[in-house]
Amino acid sequence: MTHHTDLTLGRRVMAMIEDLARHTDEPGRLTRLYLSDAHRRAAEDTLRLMREAGMSAQIDALGSVVGRIEGTDPDAPALLIGSHIDTVVDAGRYDGTLGVVLGIAVVEALRQQGVAPACPIEVVAFGDEENVRFPTNLSTSSALAGRFDPAWLDGRDQDGISLRDALIRFGGDPDGAAALARDPARYRGYLEVHIEQGPLLESKNLPVGIVSAINGITRARAHVTGEAGHAGTVPMAMRRDALAAVAEMIGIVERAGATRTDTVATVGVAQVQPGAINVIPARVDFTLDARAPDDAVRQAMVQDIVAGCEAAAQRRGVKFAIEPFMDSPATAMDGSLIGHLERAVRSVGFEPLHLPSGAGHDATAMANLCPSAMLFVRCKDGISHNPAESITVEDADIAARVLLEAVKRIAG
Amino acid sequence: MTHHTDLTLGRRVMAMIEDLARHTDEPGRLTRLYLSDAHRRAAEDTLRLMREAGMSAQIDALGSVVGRIEGTDPDAPALLIGSHIDTVVDAGRYDGTLGVVLGIAVVEALRQQGVAPACPIEVVAFGDEENVRFPTNLSTSSALAGRFDPAWLDGRDQDGISLRDALIRFGGDPDGAAALARDPARYRGYLEVHIEQGPLLESKNLPVGIVSAINGITRARAHVTGEAGHAGTVPMAMRRDALAAVAEMIGIVERAGATRTDTVATVGVAQVQPGAINVIPARVDFTLDARAPDDAVRQAMVQDIVAGCEAAAQRRGVKFAIEPFMDSPATAMDGSLIGHLERAVRSVGFEPLHLPSGAGHDATAMANLCPSAMLFVRCKDGISHNPAESITVEDADIAARVLLEAVKRIAG
Repeated sequence: MTHHTDLTLGRRVMAMIEDLARHTDEPGRLTRLYLSDAHRRAAEDTLRLMREAGMSAQIDALGSVVGRIEGTDPDAPALLIGSHIDTVVDAGRYDGTLGVVLGIAVVEALRQQGVAPACPIEVVAFGDEENVRFPTNLSTSSALAGRFDPAWLDGRDQDGISLRDALIRFGGDPDGAAALARDPARYRGYLEVHIEQGPLLESKNLPVGIVSAINGITRARAHVTGEAGHAGTVPMAMRRDALAAVAEMIGIVERAGATRTDTVATVGVAQVQPGAINVIPARVDFTLDARAPDDAVRQAMVQDIVAGCEAAAQRRGVKFAIEPFMDSPATAMDGSLIGHLERAVRSVGFEPLHLPSGAGHDATAMANLCPSAMLFVRCKDGISHNPAESITVEDADIAARVLLEAVKRIAG
Repeated sequence: MTHHTDLTLGRRVMAMIEDLARHTDEPGRLTRLYLSDAHRRAAEDTLRLMREAGMSAQIDALGSVVGRIEGTDPDAPALLIGSHIDTVVDAGRYDGTLGVVLGIAVVEALRQQGVAPACPIEVVAFGDEENVRFPTNLSTSSALAGRFDPAWLDGRDQDGISLRDALIRFGGDPDGAAALARDPARYRGYLEVHIEQGPLLESKNLPVGIVSAINGITRARAHVTGEAGHAGTVPMAMRRDALAAVAEMIGIVERAGATRTDTVATVGVAQVQPGAINVIPARVDFTLDARAPDDAVRQAMVQDIVAGCEAAAQRRGVKFAIEPFMDSPATAMDGSLIGHLERAVRSVGFEPLHLPSGAGHDATAMANLCPSAMLFVRCKDGISHNPAESITVEDADIAARVLLEAVKRIAG
């Protein structure tokens, strides 16, 4: 169990979360899309918090807020700590923002404790992680990793406003993205703390867990075509029932996800045609979402699913077609940083639990720049992207102390 | 194999089918709803055909066309032969009409062959079998069986026209339904020939089959409630996936239908909520349609399905609810009439195949009046309720000769 603590860090984290939760584009609920007015206000508030913590800070060309303290060794590569302050529509207050304020709280604590890190520490509040407003993919963290795609500037939101115009209106600089790219030699690592967005830590009765990898994702659309028929007059043995076939395939998907370690496989959509009580279904369209922390495991899983579905289709005399449209590789987390996190977790009295991240994060992009690692914080009922998103002040405190300990170990 | 024949009867049947197929309410396709103008014209044409065949005939108060020849024994109860001349929207030309013209063709043939039946023979062209226009259930045949429900007169079509008003406009008599009830003592049986509307006869390479029973039907709506979750972050073992649960249930339904003799069980509708590729399904609503020629078998089948679904739901931690809304008993066909049909089928060179009727027919209502039996005729690809509905002149000929032989045996 945890050591006793006065929850000073946890309370500070929760206070900053409260501060930033005030900034919303929609009264009555939290919606803070990239480059919106609320995002601007939240960025300025984050800037203030960073400066109050003793950092030199500015809002960069793409709206990310970057604070920095220098280290005692002018040649030491810097440690980055970050997450994002944009949200989905009708969001919770912890997703992203928690990781930003934890970075600020840790720098504050180092200063209060009179600890001077050997290397510089940068805290970053990214602005475009949810990818809700524009057709981008982690654009702000990708810019730091030197992977900003200029075509993103032409993407438009649902009101027809381009990312380029939104940046100008926000006070950013569309032409400044390339210059944001960091020199990998100058960065020793990236740490991101994030709510788990899943129920595993809660079920294990643990406040934090260490991310082993950010899962790779395969997504596909599948179609099964059988033959419509009268539900009363076609004998069972003569049917080519598309829904009965897909039911078998959903079982194959479920078993493929469940029989491997740390993999998930989901059928979230199934649409039945013609969809009448007395007509044998002629066609079913369904989706596949399969994730694994290891790409070879994911590809083997998807191959097993496809082979199983093809065999079921052949046996049943229905046609099966599948169109993969996403094959996003897994992002391994850095072993050395994971080791520091493990020791930090133990130092506050918990056993390190390793778990994959099922969702993408800024760390996915930052791993292209430097070694990266993530710490997950238990969230109530595993809920995220929802106003019911919740963590306890005790868990915020533990996460802050783990991060502080890890930063001390890494930044020396 | 069949004996050689000059197809005289088959050609006569197909010619009458052609005659009646001209009467449609929609140019370019066959739609002949109960009491429509096309139904009136088809009824008058049927009246003409009956009279040409030597019958006394009239259109009754509900629009059914009834032709009759007397028998040599004035005390002998009559034999009824019939089916319906109404159709679905965009129909085929054989469903219903085939049984009516076969009755007329057989009476013609008896006369041409100089055969005087001992008992009277009535041929009936019912008008309301498809139950498409009004919220009725086999109203015209039910009237003959003394089971016309006066509440049906208040039912309205989609234009707001009541059955009562439509009857008056047609030239019928809404108040005459009760008087149509026949005295069961005066009727020895009812024979109906109908296309199979299924693929079994085609698969068995047989032109005709004898109906063992008209299946009883259970229909129900079922609901499974699980828990939505992020498709990436909720481990497989912690999911309460409503769609994965329903997939298992569809397998239970399929096996329940397939492992019994002559039963069918179908899930025709499955609607998934929220239905997004990256969200674990929270709720699925689906339908059950289960049919069997024996009510005890059907009830046992449904009980097995419900028990299996409940067990799957419990194991998976989802809620399962099922609401049956139809429990329509099976209609046994008469053993003595089946015996006559068997001998008639053998007399034209085929082995009698017994099969249940998965769909309802006027015989369902007529069985309340007198012993009833049905002969099914092979139809191409098992298709019905579709312009592609098709039978061959050879099969029409075989069906006519079987019916003629059966009538000779029954009517003496």
